[in-house]
Amino acid sequence: MREERRAGWARWGTPEHAKPLPEAVAGLLKQVFEVTPPVAPVAPEAVAVPVSPLSDQALAALAEVVGAEQVSTGIAERAVHATGKSTPDLFHQRSGELPALPSAVVAPADHDQVLALLATCVDHGLAVVPFGGGTSVVGGLTPQLGKPAPHPIGTPATDGTATEQAAVGAYISLDLRRLDRLVAVDPVSRTAVLQAGLPAPRADALLAEHGFTLGHVPQSYEYATIGGFAATRSSGQASAGYGRFDDMVVGMTVATPRGTIATGRAPASSAGPDLRRLFLGSEGAFGVITDVTVRVRPLAAERRYEGWRFASFADGAAAARRLAQDGPRPTVLRLSDEVETMLGATGRGRGDGGCLMVVGHEGASVGHAAAQTAAVLRECGGQELGTEPGEQWAAHRFDAPYLRDALIDAGAFAETLETAAFWSALPGLYEAVREALFAALPVPSMVLCHVSHVYETGASLYFTVVTAYADEPVARWQRAKAAASDAIIAAGGTISHHHGVGTEHRDWFAQEVGPLGVDVLRAVKRELDPAGVLNPGILVES
Amino acid sequence: MREERRAGWARWGTPEHAKPLPEAVAGLLKQVFEVTPPVAPVAPEAVAVPVSPLSDQALAALAEVVGAEQVSTGIAERAVHATGKSTPDLFHQRSGELPALPSAVVAPADHDQVLALLATCVDHGLAVVPFGGGTSVVGGLTPQLGKPAPHPIGTPATDGTATEQAAVGAYISLDLRRLDRLVAVDPVSRTAVLQAGLPAPRADALLAEHGFTLGHVPQSYEYATIGGFAATRSSGQASAGYGRFDDMVVGMTVATPRGTIATGRAPASSAGPDLRRLFLGSEGAFGVITDVTVRVRPLAAERRYEGWRFASFADGAAAARRLAQDGPRPTVLRLSDEVETMLGATGRGRGDGGCLMVVGHEGASVGHAAAQTAAVLRECGGQELGTEPGEQWAAHRFDAPYLRDALIDAGAFAETLETAAFWSALPGLYEAVREALFAALPVPSMVLCHVSHVYETGASLYFTVVTAYADEPVARWQRAKAAASDAIIAAGGTISHHHGVGTEHRDWFAQEVGPLGVDVLRAVKRELDPAGVLNPGILVES
Repeated sequence: MREERRAGWARWGTPEHAKPLPEAVAGLLKQVFEVTPPVAPVAPEAVAVPVSPLSDQALAALAEVVGAEQVSTGIAERAVHATGKSTPDLFHQRSGELPALPSAVVAPADHDQVLALLATCVDHGLAVVPFGGGTSVVGGLTPQLGKPAPHPIGTPATDGTATEQAAVGAYISLDLRRLDRLVAVDPVSRTAVLQAGLPAPRADALLAEHGFTLGHVPQSYEYATIGGFAATRSSGQASAGYGRFDDMVVGMTVATPRGTIATGRAPASSAGPDLRRLFLGSEGAFGVITDVTVRVRPLAAERRYEGWRFASFADGAAAARRLAQDGPRPTVLRLSDEVETMLGATGRGRGDGGCLMVVGHEGASVGHAAAQTAAVLRECGGQELGTEPGEQWAAHRFDAPYLRDALIDAGAFAETLETAAFWSALPGLYEAVREALFAALPVPSMVLCHVSHVYETGASLYFTVVTAYADEPVARWQRAKAAASDAIIAAGGTISHHHGVGTEHRDWFAQEVGPLGVDVLRAVKRELDPAGVLNPGILVES
Repeated sequence: MREERRAGWARWGTPEHAKPLPEAVAGLLKQVFEVTPPVAPVAPEAVAVPVSPLSDQALAALAEVVGAEQVSTGIAERAVHATGKSTPDLFHQRSGELPALPSAVVAPADHDQVLALLATCVDHGLAVVPFGGGTSVVGGLTPQLGKPAPHPIGTPATDGTATEQAAVGAYISLDLRRLDRLVAVDPVSRTAVLQAGLPAPRADALLAEHGFTLGHVPQSYEYATIGGFAATRSSGQASAGYGRFDDMVVGMTVATPRGTIATGRAPASSAGPDLRRLFLGSEGAFGVITDVTVRVRPLAAERRYEGWRFASFADGAAAARRLAQDGPRPTVLRLSDEVETMLGATGRGRGDGGCLMVVGHEGASVGHAAAQTAAVLRECGGQELGTEPGEQWAAHRFDAPYLRDALIDAGAFAETLETAAFWSALPGLYEAVREALFAALPVPSMVLCHVSHVYETGASLYFTVVTAYADEPVARWQRAKAAASDAIIAAGGTISHHHGVGTEHRDWFAQEVGPLGVDVLRAVKRELDPAGVLNPGILVES
């Protein structure tokens, strides 16, 4: 199992990056919940293993393409590639009962090997799940090949001879880790060609050698990859200034079972529908993105993150809307509701009430922009808290998933969900989701929310849920998530603003785009993947 | 025939808006070319008319949907709907030899009538060409139903009994003029729902009552419609500030033969590929856009258009790139090359040499932005010419197609083509297109160029060609255009930045997206339009 910068087993990141729960939060938990510390996770080597129905011929054919050393059938490696990092995924990992398991992990070296692998998989009837950083939180790495029977935990089945799991079908995890090069930089056009398997920090490090940055900093930044950003239409914490990943992509190369599609000859075109947008968000169901040409920006010489306090979430949202619509547009704009502000403040030793807004500026020189922004925020009733809360946020911007591990270790269940809508629909959406969650979750539960991505016409809402976990926490969460998802669709929101569809959101995505929209996507999939080997059941039903 | 704001017959706009050729240009023409004033245009009532193979049953069925008074089979009405406004189209209109002719012009009242019309057309084997402002310059209104035999000019065939044209097939022009309402304004989200047939000036007038504007001002502004902007991925003269029309669209309702698709629940989403982007640029081949939800902006309180002079096109392009990449971004940014500057200057009595840049600022208050921009332009070697050249440009911003008519009347052939590419490819693209045009056009010919749309990673190039027209000017132009199109693809440009694909660019569009890209688009079309009634031969081959 690879130990480097890649989300590990049964928790986020690697153990040395674990973050302890702030004492105040731990204390609060104990006050609010009857917490039951969970049992220790099963080791990845000891997960329940269905058969690996790969024939010797199929294994040999895969090895023929990539070399035998790049085809792994070890249980731990396969287990790590079996799921993403949703809380249910972590519980599956902890219990050792995985919803699916790849028969092999295969790591091609380049685009041509990806093409050849797809052909091999078609020939041998193997499904293919592309794997980048493994950070999906919506079941995007768990294909639906059939209905697996549940396995007893830790059943050893390393010889691959058992047959009772044949109904599940077999699939390989196509790990893009070897496609990790910065292929080209065009400093005049400010574009760069990045291979799909590049983790974001490495991409930024390579770009920094040329004086550039991507400016794409999602929560999963430390582990997620360039190809994954494109496949899932990722959006980063600095989206107000740098845009969504969609906005950064100017071209892509995609390997499909029918061959290669290369898109993006110009920053903009009126020549037909923008095919880049068909592969952005395609989640591996239409093809495997092998490289992405991105717009890059000069490294920011200055950064300034400030905290602002607003009396209410509505007041803060009005100020955020004002900046998003009339400017100036900061680089980072993030507003916590009262509960999230209180809990964040508890963790960081502050407790001023109201709602915390983090406003970040990055650029060649940020003083003027910060002053202009401050003037607007003051007009909107904001109270300046200085840079300390902003710098605190920046210092801990990647902590949330580590804190989730600490919460789980402390016996709480924590998970997130998110949506976006037009500004006028936002207050109703906020209330509807909270109501649905509270109705479905046991008392006491906490629901936190923030706005982290703003647009002229609307914004995102990101909810964090913390409850005690008693019996069947995953099933209970799934019911609550379904109720929240119903509420999102009913209140006019999108089922996901930056997590994607995967398998978890698929039914609501189908409602969002309608049956004819689903038919169109399935028609595209049939055209590019006639054998249906690519990510079956992800994005659209197979 | 409707006489209101709609592009008329055999020329742009309506006769009362005609612009005379500036005397200096007329003089220059006489010096450079041996000009032969053309014969007077054939009247639309007198065009060659193939059969109208509509059966009485089909006519009755169409009338059943929209009412008999909304089904026109008059020759003039059909002739006006037969083509767009490319120079070859104008020549076809002038000669009375049209490449195709709808059998009827049908004007539905609303989305449901569009759906019903599509069903009727499928039942009766009729093709459907959506018609908005009729301003296509790429053959987007001329379906390819078969190979028509040429007609003698002015053959009267008003009774619809002739049969020799049956091979062409029959189609209706689906005129969206009655879908002309502002449906809703959401001042909080700053969005508005506009029906597809609304001409742009009317849309802006309706929005202005609410204090908003679209900010979309293409050359075709006076006649083009909202639905057409979306279907062709239009881009306006103020795209630097307001964005492309793609960027403005937050939702769409599309009528297809399979039913309705409604897209756009949020400003942004990661829920699957963005289906809005599949219909933006679909040019009526996937469905009929019936309404568009757009992002709107407050009416600009101030406007300021300036002229700047740069020593060379390369110097001006470097300055434009600097503004596009590092800001501040003006609202309008337009740079003419030496030849266009000279001819524009000739027309307007100026002749300072170098290259003219027009820089426009619109907003609540533009002084600060203008000062910041000026500082950058001075640093880049720009020479300030004050507001007069900018205001001149703004006053004449819609004149070009009228001047084309005046040029044609004066015996010259004028036409345009455009492309876009990444900044580093732009100089090579500029040279390659000019070389291809000069090689294919007779001596003397003039090729003018400007940059009118800038992005962080690249820009557009817009070429205007003026030559004498001797024999077969259209065929000669088509050869020159083909050579220029080959050069565009070879030099890495897109075949169209804001004119679209239509029929004229289809073969090069296929090269641009590749055979697999074309297969994907055809798969989408098959799914939504199984009978193939929508715009046959437009965008992709039938």
